[in-house]
Amino acid sequence: MNIEKFEMLYEGKAKKIFKYNDEEVIIYFKDDVTAFNGIKKDSISGKGKINKKITTFFFELVEKEGIPTQFVKDLDENSFIAKKVEIIPLEVIVRNYTAGSFCKRYGVEKGIKLENPIVEFSLKDDSLGDPMICENVILSLNLVEKDVLEKLKEYALKINEILSKFLTEKNIILVDYKLEFGKYNDKILLADEISPDTCRFWDKDTMDSLDKDVYREEKGDLIDKYTEFLRRIDI
Amino acid sequence: MNIEKFEMLYEGKAKKIFKYNDEEVIIYFKDDVTAFNGIKKDSISGKGKINKKITTFFFELVEKEGIPTQFVKDLDENSFIAKKVEIIPLEVIVRNYTAGSFCKRYGVEKGIKLENPIVEFSLKDDSLGDPMICENVILSLNLVEKDVLEKLKEYALKINEILSKFLTEKNIILVDYKLEFGKYNDKILLADEISPDTCRFWDKDTMDSLDKDVYREEKGDLIDKYTEFLRRIDI
Ligand SMILES: Nc1ncnc2c1ncn2[C@@H]1O[C@H](COP(=O)(O)OP(=O)(O)O)[C@@H](O)[C@H]1O
Ligand SMILES: Nc1ncnc2c1ncn2[C@@H]1O[C@H](COP(=O)(O)OP(=O)(O)O)[C@@H](O)[C@H]1O
Ligand SMILES: [Mg+2]
Ligand SMILES: [Mg+2]
Repeated sequence: MNIEKFEMLYEGKAKKIFKYNDEEVIIYFKDDVTAFNGIKKDSISGKGKINKKITTFFFELVEKEGIPTQFVKDLDENSFIAKKVEIIPLEVIVRNYTAGSFCKRYGVEKGIKLENPIVEFSLKDDSLGDPMICENVILSLNLVEKDVLEKLKEYALKINEILSKFLTEKNIILVDYKLEFGKYNDKILLADEISPDTCRFWDKDTMDSLDKDVYREEKGDLIDKYTEFLRRIDI
Repeated sequence: MNIEKFEMLYEGKAKKIFKYNDEEVIIYFKDDVTAFNGIKKDSISGKGKINKKITTFFFELVEKEGIPTQFVKDLDENSFIAKKVEIIPLEVIVRNYTAGSFCKRYGVEKGIKLENPIVEFSLKDDSLGDPMICENVILSLNLVEKDVLEKLKEYALKINEILSKFLTEKNIILVDYKLEFGKYNDKILLADEISPDTCRFWDKDTMDSLDKDVYREEKGDLIDKYTEFLRRIDI
């Protein structure tokens, strides 16, 4: 598929968005990988393909369980077709175990299981460094309506149940992950991606990372680990 | 009063705490002023005296309106006697207008009146830079019980009404402020201080700062502005 014949609407750090038709876009997964808000970057051959495969799989899985998503249909090795949504400018983060920025911010140990999952929000704004934002401030700044905020939390937690159940059976811990949602007509759809770039996955026995922390912390070969993840979830 | 005969329990950036008896402490207001988590510091002769006077006044005012506080009685120019509390490790911040870190964090303009006051929390931990913390995380990390969290918000908003009403009559805008609370037996008491070091006060006509922003942003003489504030509230 010669993707370059489509009009590119946006190029982000990990994906390109092309216009497919008035209602739909092509989401193309690049090999680029970045960390620390773009300060560290590389191109790792094969990454796009893997992330596209994992994202497609997870989107079909959650859709089947009742979560409305952007996913329309598969296109090729690096891309799928999705509903074109108006992205809600919030990153929705769910944490089951302490890790990453949460540990650094509050000085807590890594790898502690939280009694209940935490839903956290960041304002999606690279120039501000995606600052954390509490629910009352989201409402005060009119970023979304109260009912939309409730829906985001409801979906984020439902997705957590679906993914955690699936991954537990593969002996993988779903530590935390970031979701994006968008508006499509009057509906809220899960958008963007669900991949080792946007989740923390730990092997349950060794606690080894099977995600982008391998790149962030330079603790192994990214393609090796992402491929190992693919193998483990058996898709 | 020779304060040095008492045992000093703690020396902070702006105050010293002495043991008065088993149940009570002396809160002594120093002339030291700091900003940006202690990076900028100075000693400004006369500041302690002014802040002690303002704090005493505001504590008596809110106590009279039904907020339980640490305040016991006046001692001397720089100090008063307070119930010794176990400080809750949260800074409770109330915002009526956008200013300071809130503007920087979310890229919003300074001086916008918020439709409803925002109550924000920071984890009181200088080594972590007092990181912002949302209510669900406060509960998840068991920093306080749910009913205590609700009480903190209730008191913070009640104090907001009392102070805003008082200051409006003096043609002063209460922009934002930081409170600390403590546990005393089974009760939650307002503790620490309420002063131009911990509040933003703007002249309603000129929007000039009558608070520590004068020092942070080097836009005038701190004692002049604090004295002007004292004169305006007429105590
Ligand atoms: N279905 C969709 N419709 C429109 N935009 C989308 C959709 N899904 C994701 N996006 C947006 O496209 C961009 C994806 O590219 P990415 O490389 O992740 O960008 P970024 O560097 O901004 O994170 C993001 O801005 C994301 O919010
Ligand atoms: N009533 C009280 N009993 C015990 N400790 C208090 C009381 N009121 C305030 N404190 C604590 O005493 C210290 C006051 O000193 P300050 O100079 O403000 O310290 P800091 O540099 O930690 O902000 C703070 O840690 C504050 O939490
Ligand atoms: Mg992205
Ligand atoms: Mg203090």
